[in-house]
Amino acid sequence: MKAEIISCGTELLLGHIVDTNAAWLAQQLAPLGIDVYYVSQVGDNQSRVVGLLKTAWSRSDLIIMTGGIGPTEDDATRESISELVGETMSVDPQLEVELRGFWTRRGRPMPERNIKQATLIPSASTLPNPHGTAPGWFVEKDGRIIVAMPGVPHEMYRMWKDQAEPKIVRRLGAGVIHTRIHKVLGLGESQVEEMIDELIHGTNPTAATYAKSDGIYVRVSAKAASIEAADGLMAPVEARLNEILGEHIYALDDDTLVTVCTRLLKERGHRLAVFEFNTGGLVASQITDASGIADVFIGGIVPFSAAMMKQFGVDATTVDAHGPVSMKTARAMATAARHVLGADVGLGISGTTGAEGTTRQNPGSLYLAVDISGNVRSEEGGIFGTTAAQLKARAALAALDFLRKQLLHS
Amino acid sequence: MKAEIISCGTELLLGHIVDTNAAWLAQQLAPLGIDVYYVSQVGDNQSRVVGLLKTAWSRSDLIIMTGGIGPTEDDATRESISELVGETMSVDPQLEVELRGFWTRRGRPMPERNIKQATLIPSASTLPNPHGTAPGWFVEKDGRIIVAMPGVPHEMYRMWKDQAEPKIVRRLGAGVIHTRIHKVLGLGESQVEEMIDELIHGTNPTAATYAKSDGIYVRVSAKAASIEAADGLMAPVEARLNEILGEHIYALDDDTLVTVCTRLLKERGHRLAVFEFNTGGLVASQITDASGIADVFIGGIVPFSAAMMKQFGVDATTVDAHGPVSMKTARAMATAARHVLGADVGLGISGTTGAEGTTRQNPGSLYLAVDISGNVRSEEGGIFGTTAAQLKARAALAALDFLRKQLLHS
Repeated sequence: MKAEIISCGTELLLGHIVDTNAAWLAQQLAPLGIDVYYVSQVGDNQSRVVGLLKTAWSRSDLIIMTGGIGPTEDDATRESISELVGETMSVDPQLEVELRGFWTRRGRPMPERNIKQATLIPSASTLPNPHGTAPGWFVEKDGRIIVAMPGVPHEMYRMWKDQAEPKIVRRLGAGVIHTRIHKVLGLGESQVEEMIDELIHGTNPTAATYAKSDGIYVRVSAKAASIEAADGLMAPVEARLNEILGEHIYALDDDTLVTVCTRLLKERGHRLAVFEFNTGGLVASQITDASGIADVFIGGIVPFSAAMMKQFGVDATTVDAHGPVSMKTARAMATAARHVLGADVGLGISGTTGAEGTTRQNPGSLYLAVDISGNVRSEEGGIFGTTAAQLKARAALAALDFLRKQLLHS
Repeated sequence: MKAEIISCGTELLLGHIVDTNAAWLAQQLAPLGIDVYYVSQVGDNQSRVVGLLKTAWSRSDLIIMTGGIGPTEDDATRESISELVGETMSVDPQLEVELRGFWTRRGRPMPERNIKQATLIPSASTLPNPHGTAPGWFVEKDGRIIVAMPGVPHEMYRMWKDQAEPKIVRRLGAGVIHTRIHKVLGLGESQVEEMIDELIHGTNPTAATYAKSDGIYVRVSAKAASIEAADGLMAPVEARLNEILGEHIYALDDDTLVTVCTRLLKERGHRLAVFEFNTGGLVASQITDASGIADVFIGGIVPFSAAMMKQFGVDATTVDAHGPVSMKTARAMATAARHVLGADVGLGISGTTGAEGTTRQNPGSLYLAVDISGNVRSEEGGIFGTTAAQLKARAALAALDFLRKQLLHS
């Protein structure tokens, strides 16, 4: 099946927003075995949308549209599809009842132009939108499919996953597509690809790698009659993946390094405190982005000088002898985090990876230490990048991954 | 002039990367008065690129392409343009010397397939790429222009600004386009639009608003024979903008809230320390993303409990009487930041804006206090959002903006 994606909205052509919907949809289509050959953005202009649809209709089996299904004059997606297939839009009584009900519940009269959100054409069925007022359209005609969904990302994601994808999977003749993301740190993408080479040539399940800001993602997907059957197909591949990559896999699906560390801390009844020099507060900030951390996070200190380190209990002799940027000082910071803040686990981070201008040849230094109930372990690393923000982000990732591994073995 | 943007790369069609280049280019074209009607992404496939180019050639005066100019077989942009205009690529002796020189300086032999990066066609001139090996093409034929640039964003940005844009501006008959961004906080986009309504209907200079994560941007652009002449046209509009928006304008162009605060601190010879509760380290992290802060930033404390606040010198009577989330405690935190860390300026941040699930009806609370040499000022605010990360980001923005205003008046 050949697919193309069309994103509608003049704001896309002005560069006011970046079209993240198209990339997200493309990611969903790959594991279905659907090839995407074209992606386009077009403004809110019916003649241009129709022109693009005609081209798409001539070269693709599946056209996925986002945006342009709101209530205003500008919104031209329904009108353009109707013009393309030569059918007339009419108000669907059931959709009208639902739409008016939405406005009644809000205690406001419905602007009459909104009625176009309750229209259909003979070839279209409705894709309900529990998160907004605009239902989508699923159009089938002459062996082709057009899916029209909202441009608001979270409405579109749900409509795709809950409504559109299952319909398309049925057309493809498979029952379900089931996917799991394995998140990997400590290895580069080409390394991961090489290590799991035996797995990435399969067709069902498929395995593929993606480089992301929080590591390498390995996506395993299977088509089967049910989730359980898909899981059965994925099980041997995932078992082999775990054998090959081991502890480099730090999380699955929506889990993050912080949620994994938080869970490990909770399981062990440990409370964490952080002393961070070159990450400048970023590790504390990432931890406090997660929910449910009040039981496991005591707080953080961001000392920006040797003097402040010593003031807050980092061993003065060590700081004076080795300087603020050293492995010995990182170890003393981890211990100070535990002692001064009354934590079970102290994380100490030092290095020059907050400084700009490092290169592959001359990476920033990174010293990581974790003190778990008096047992101190440390690791030296190097990070390169072009901006302070990028270097800090990579250092924070390495620090939380080191914490994860120490917690695993504690 | 009608333009369209074509981004080449199979990774775009797989959703591995989001096409931020197209949005960036669209933003550059709007102030030139160039309309963008279509944006497309296409894979590394010559016949599909040529097909798209033919359509673009029939409907647009200016085609801007990014990606596909690397040395590999996959890279099809040069070949596709040559096929479109019916011209043969040949190696340009000067480009070959430069390309081989690049490899010689690296002490490595040039892979022979890379020679295609030194080719031209009769209608193309070179756009030098000081940041990479792939020069761009500027093609002029039959009254149409094709610009082909690298897909790597920082190489493309520079090539556009330094090479391609000036050429196009000359074709448009204006000498230069000069633009300045005025960044605004404390007002919504529709409020700003309403306030500066008298300015946004002009044609030279133009003024337009954009909502960004760090506030509302007002972009003022003028076309003129020289930068100085453009500045002359912009001056009265910008003077009026300053009159209307006053201190809501926090920065110009590449300046950020942090660089502005850093400069204000330096000018006053002040050193800053931060005590942050609900922003959880994010303010310290944003400050340490900037360069040259060692003189003005002492460090930060991220206390995640009332106990830790008291341990680090926040007045215990105040914390006990009013709780960690209160204006009185925020003021005591600002003073503690100054006293405990030996700073001239202490910033104290408390509130519930790190907690998820706030709504427009029930926003998170935010208490901000700044102690400058013993003079404490404070402000109460409310922030809403859907994730802890979003709420924290908005609270941090409000905190740094409050700090900026207090520094301005100190």
